[in-house]
Amino acid sequence: MSDETMSFQLTILGTSSALPTSNRYPTAQVLNVLGRFFLIDCGEGTQTQMRKFKIGFSKIDHIFITHLHGDHIFGLIGLISTMVLLGREKDLHIYSHSELQKFISAQLNFLYADKIPMKIVFHPLNFKREQLIYEDAKVSIYSFPLSHRIPTCGFRFDEKPPLPNLLAKKIEEYQIPICERQRIKEGGDFLTSNGQLIPHSQLTVKKFKARSFAFCSDTRFDESYIESIKNVDLLYHEATFAEDNRKLANTTFHSTGKEAAEVALKAQAGQLLIGHFSARYKDHAPILEEARAIFPNTKAISEGDVIQVEKKNV
Amino acid sequence: MSDETMSFQLTILGTSSALPTSNRYPTAQVLNVLGRFFLIDCGEGTQTQMRKFKIGFSKIDHIFITHLHGDHIFGLIGLISTMVLLGREKDLHIYSHSELQKFISAQLNFLYADKIPMKIVFHPLNFKREQLIYEDAKVSIYSFPLSHRIPTCGFRFDEKPPLPNLLAKKIEEYQIPICERQRIKEGGDFLTSNGQLIPHSQLTVKKFKARSFAFCSDTRFDESYIESIKNVDLLYHEATFAEDNRKLANTTFHSTGKEAAEVALKAQAGQLLIGHFSARYKDHAPILEEARAIFPNTKAISEGDVIQVEKKNV
Repeated sequence: MSDETMSFQLTILGTSSALPTSNRYPTAQVLNVLGRFFLIDCGEGTQTQMRKFKIGFSKIDHIFITHLHGDHIFGLIGLISTMVLLGREKDLHIYSHSELQKFISAQLNFLYADKIPMKIVFHPLNFKREQLIYEDAKVSIYSFPLSHRIPTCGFRFDEKPPLPNLLAKKIEEYQIPICERQRIKEGGDFLTSNGQLIPHSQLTVKKFKARSFAFCSDTRFDESYIESIKNVDLLYHEATFAEDNRKLANTTFHSTGKEAAEVALKAQAGQLLIGHFSARYKDHAPILEEARAIFPNTKAISEGDVIQVEKKNV
Repeated sequence: MSDETMSFQLTILGTSSALPTSNRYPTAQVLNVLGRFFLIDCGEGTQTQMRKFKIGFSKIDHIFITHLHGDHIFGLIGLISTMVLLGREKDLHIYSHSELQKFISAQLNFLYADKIPMKIVFHPLNFKREQLIYEDAKVSIYSFPLSHRIPTCGFRFDEKPPLPNLLAKKIEEYQIPICERQRIKEGGDFLTSNGQLIPHSQLTVKKFKARSFAFCSDTRFDESYIESIKNVDLLYHEATFAEDNRKLANTTFHSTGKEAAEVALKAQAGQLLIGHFSARYKDHAPILEEARAIFPNTKAISEGDVIQVEKKNV
């Protein structure tokens, strides 16, 4: 799976929570869906981490910001500045709380006045309900509300199912002309010359199962967003604390490892990734352990991890 | 020299120029003068580097910002935010172009409204002439104009000469009473009981030579600031390019390794540190080589370097 245009692959750039540590960076991840690179959150140092893990700045056209706490946004101005210095001309799309536009635009005006070569398009998120925020031929992206101290959204990235193959024997059997085949692949039925309607499902065979990833941070445990992440192949859920700090997790609107695992279980996720670890944990072992007791296929993420979701036959 | 209250010691946090690389951070250095910690510039990731190299956030009371380009200021909001999250109450002093206050205050108001536990005191720099900007019992700090595309200041940190020792044989010879001794140490003469005035210089012996450090970045070569850095023990001077890019250095108001060395030579500095290397140089060897040809005691800095200026007898 070395061809990045076939991949569904997540690269971890930062895994710490608000207070920095000497070896962890604040939140940032890059998801590659078939050669489209989506940056999710942008803590301080994200651009350095991108250089380190060889993610080209020019590949990023869409940035998704969960909420406006510093550890999720302080890397934005540096990354955008570098794009400006490199003379970027492509539009850059940022999906976030509407207030981010003021925050970033004020800084850009101060630094560059009106000498910014590219257009930055801000897309305000809806913090009340799930919403389709991006769509192209290969992927759909949804935002959905999480439960944090300030308005926060999670994101779900759905690969679109590839078009099915036409069955060779059916083409022959019904003498399906070439000009009809694409339409049938895209979901159409076929009307034979003697007026018989052959349904799409009898003419085609599905290739692969479409893949999906959901990002849930920052949030406390809340049943309300389970439906939005149902059946994802890969789920990232914050686990700032272990159960020994459950009370603190609740009051600060964060989750424990156990709670993250409960979310994964209820959502019937394929694999759970946990991160956003509090600086008080020198070692994430207790958080991981309590999560695995409930949801065994859990991984505690580190900077530089690359997680693939492999193609599966239907 | 493990006692930090006796040290004159520089720690390098970042050495890159504007574009990030995978292994260099933008400009930031911390100077410890006898237990006082001064942060000079604050590029993105400075707080992470401070954690890595074990410089406590609470030790920093004074931050010196040379100029308002992103690679010298993008770490400020993250560092100040961490201080806010840690509940800092001590005043924080920032010496910079007056416009920085608007830039930082707007961000802090956005993030914390009026819930900032400490006072941030902004001290505007003078970009026309040298100025004493800080003084206490042990150290004096001066700013002076450099020559860059936007208003930029260098800084000079002067340890104050320690008070001299009184000579034991003179105390005995002139029967100097205890109550007079501190006054003489601080520079006074002594009037004997028979009316003879013994000058300070005959009664005392100096302990150590006071130490000094100057920081020159960003700037192009310019004779105008040589006088402000004359005879410093340690000089940091930017060397963004090698001579192969001298023309580019001139038009972007940066220096080459050779030019940095010429400054050190004219200023009769003790040791030269060079940094702020352009991302186009994978290896700083050519920059260092041309500098050493002119000023042999030159060091190319790397993240984590600690440079001591040892005490010297007068």
